[in-house]
Amino acid sequence: MEHFVFSEAIITQLESIVGSSYIFLDEETRNHYGHDETEDYVFPPGVLVKPANVQEISEIMKLAGQYKIPVVPIGGRTGLSGGALSIHRGLGISMERLNKILEIDEKNLQVTTEPAVITQILREAVAEKGLFYPVDPSSQGSCWIGGNVAENSGGARAVKYGVTKDYVLNLEVVLPNGDIIRTGANTLKNSTGYNLTQLMVGSEGTLGIITKIVLKLLPQHTHNVLLLVPFYKAVEACQAVSAIFRAGIVPSALEFMERDAIDWAIKYVDGLNVQVKDEIEAHLLIEVDGNYPEILFSEAEKIMNVLEEFHIDEVLFADSEDQKNAIWKMRRNVAEAVKSNSIYKEEDTVVPRYELPVLLAGIKSIGEKYGFRSVCYGHAGDGNLHVNIIKGSMTDESWKLEVPKGIREIFELTVSLKGTISGEHGIGFVQKNYMDIAFSKAHLQLMKDIKKVFDPNNILNPGKIFPDIM
Amino acid sequence: MEHFVFSEAIITQLESIVGSSYIFLDEETRNHYGHDETEDYVFPPGVLVKPANVQEISEIMKLAGQYKIPVVPIGGRTGLSGGALSIHRGLGISMERLNKILEIDEKNLQVTTEPAVITQILREAVAEKGLFYPVDPSSQGSCWIGGNVAENSGGARAVKYGVTKDYVLNLEVVLPNGDIIRTGANTLKNSTGYNLTQLMVGSEGTLGIITKIVLKLLPQHTHNVLLLVPFYKAVEACQAVSAIFRAGIVPSALEFMERDAIDWAIKYVDGLNVQVKDEIEAHLLIEVDGNYPEILFSEAEKIMNVLEEFHIDEVLFADSEDQKNAIWKMRRNVAEAVKSNSIYKEEDTVVPRYELPVLLAGIKSIGEKYGFRSVCYGHAGDGNLHVNIIKGSMTDESWKLEVPKGIREIFELTVSLKGTISGEHGIGFVQKNYMDIAFSKAHLQLMKDIKKVFDPNNILNPGKIFPDIM
Repeated sequence: MEHFVFSEAIITQLESIVGSSYIFLDEETRNHYGHDETEDYVFPPGVLVKPANVQEISEIMKLAGQYKIPVVPIGGRTGLSGGALSIHRGLGISMERLNKILEIDEKNLQVTTEPAVITQILREAVAEKGLFYPVDPSSQGSCWIGGNVAENSGGARAVKYGVTKDYVLNLEVVLPNGDIIRTGANTLKNSTGYNLTQLMVGSEGTLGIITKIVLKLLPQHTHNVLLLVPFYKAVEACQAVSAIFRAGIVPSALEFMERDAIDWAIKYVDGLNVQVKDEIEAHLLIEVDGNYPEILFSEAEKIMNVLEEFHIDEVLFADSEDQKNAIWKMRRNVAEAVKSNSIYKEEDTVVPRYELPVLLAGIKSIGEKYGFRSVCYGHAGDGNLHVNIIKGSMTDESWKLEVPKGIREIFELTVSLKGTISGEHGIGFVQKNYMDIAFSKAHLQLMKDIKKVFDPNNILNPGKIFPDIM
Repeated sequence: MEHFVFSEAIITQLESIVGSSYIFLDEETRNHYGHDETEDYVFPPGVLVKPANVQEISEIMKLAGQYKIPVVPIGGRTGLSGGALSIHRGLGISMERLNKILEIDEKNLQVTTEPAVITQILREAVAEKGLFYPVDPSSQGSCWIGGNVAENSGGARAVKYGVTKDYVLNLEVVLPNGDIIRTGANTLKNSTGYNLTQLMVGSEGTLGIITKIVLKLLPQHTHNVLLLVPFYKAVEACQAVSAIFRAGIVPSALEFMERDAIDWAIKYVDGLNVQVKDEIEAHLLIEVDGNYPEILFSEAEKIMNVLEEFHIDEVLFADSEDQKNAIWKMRRNVAEAVKSNSIYKEEDTVVPRYELPVLLAGIKSIGEKYGFRSVCYGHAGDGNLHVNIIKGSMTDESWKLEVPKGIREIFELTVSLKGTISGEHGIGFVQKNYMDIAFSKAHLQLMKDIKKVFDPNNILNPGKIFPDIM
């Protein structure tokens, strides 16, 4: 990647836009903003700015257009595909000062927010008004809603409630040329022109900088029931997933964890008294929610009937809020736990849910072929399996040469099963050279031409999503 | 609109693609395919073809590119914005032979279908397998699923279940250059590149021709409760809409009908014994659905508690399937009933639902200003109000000169209320010159440039969506 060189003139002009307190050239700050949660990559921006508002961002983009400065919008830096990495050492725009929830509209069940609000804080703020924003990525305690929109984040409740895209009604966006647009309207229905809102969602900061977000909300339900189910066979756990749906149940969460995932994550959570027998290969975490406890218990009973057809050990019914929180904390810490155990790469495979057992078996046999071990877990109800490939004792050479071949085969498998290569993490920097598996050359060119419409100078988050060689 | 002139050479080549039985030059056929349900417009294609499959459509588009033939994909012709009108007298492609439901995938709760399947038939086919496709436009008995995708259709159940876009997972599309692509994957989650699936949904046949559709399905619920509620004040009926949501209820349908709408539509339905007092200004039709009758009755009770705060007459609880069907038939026939009463124009306004009373009052006062009467009804739960402007005894001159000014003011009002100019009917031919109200020039240009990426020769459904003068 060629590095951009900032002239004095550019720095002076940036300073005059954001003010001297909000421009940073020092190494410490630049390094801090130079990584997200993607493996161990660090790509610091050449200059970091912290604009106060949409007008400043618009002015910055105009300046960037004039000098062809590569710009990376930077959010909560919890991304897993490297979307926020300043690979050209260009201008990093931290969105952190756009951090207000602007309006919780109880009359219309909507919230208008700036991007730098932590997702969990947003969810809690609307819950206080009796409203529900369902999308809860595992990183909800640190990720920002703006990043969720940029990556089309999912999370555990997507299985019943959908992903970020299903809640975004309207966006305020600064285009690469500095124009500020509203992509849609604050309505539940909209058949007025092309859906630029949905084009922007999941575009990973390559088409525009999101400065305001209008989200649809639901009434908050009052109850849930949570089950932790140990399976003697991991493949059977995967099979149980679609069996539950076929019994007419739509759980509010349906999570899969391989043995290692639960073993490693359990250490992160105090007071979680879960004993796992040696023979257990995997767990399902199953939640149903609603307003009527008696209905939820009847649904849990139906789920138990489905589970009887599989080889399971004793089911844990979480019987207090504390226990539920502990179990969820454990689930949310799996990624962190894996990270602390070994260098790893995380893939974000997704297939139609019935194909999960085939995917899991395929991943294991591809791992054997290329000599790597993997820990799999994720949102099985959506067919979304996170594959953590563990470096462990592999040689650096195998890690560098063999693993990418294995990843390619895993992605080819997902596509052959009518799935794709990212369910919720995005493509960003680390998956871009696998895009040819999911899309034909003509299809990728179409996307690239759309990028060009928005960003003819290729200044906004360049070097992301599209393969290096097309 | 300039008319395209077909040479013998073009006709011969078209014939060699589709076969001589599937190309039509006669006036009767061309006129038949020259109208949809939009007012009384008739724009016949110069030539009509009925291709058998995606390959033939691909070849047709290659030919169209070579000769710059304007092409209009034609579906069930139930559209209300003139999207299927061959305004350039170009090539009409009737999709009618692509009429098979290809696979109902019970394991993954998905259906793969060709576009020319009547929506109701699709809904019934999946219901037979215990599955639910919720989107039911009022025209469901005659509209096609392909047209629903092209227009992002809504309908009565959108209030709880969302619109067409919320169910489309993946599309097979013939691009204007003849390339065939799959826009996405058959998965519930997808963060892999730009969302071309959602760009295609609602693009009104201007970006590509949809040849295959993969839809998400839900488990079929078993029960519902239906209430017909007469209000003495129309504005109070609108107010009750958001009050119901604020009480924590998400009805599966929440429809508003002004007095005239119900009076006119009632005649269309045999055996519907509804007596409406003279003083009643409007009705709400309220449905809740689910699997547990006792819960539904408790929700109906909560709704009744909300309604007590308004001036309502006696509520009709539909007590049999026949009565429910009769009430729904009445609601679905409103558009037809209005049409048979007078020449009219139908607008498809949408606002955040709490703003409905403001919108309704505004429409009436704008009508007074420009001398027209309107009948309003629609999907109030979504804030989606259909405004039927009645010609009645207006002079042709007023109809032609004054009404468009009034429509413009109505749309300006919707946008000022954070709504937009079409909720579910699309822009097509008849609303395109109002697009400047919803979008800035730069924003429209962005959409037009996207169109150009897909269709550099502007051959696919030209003259739709974008204003004549930009």
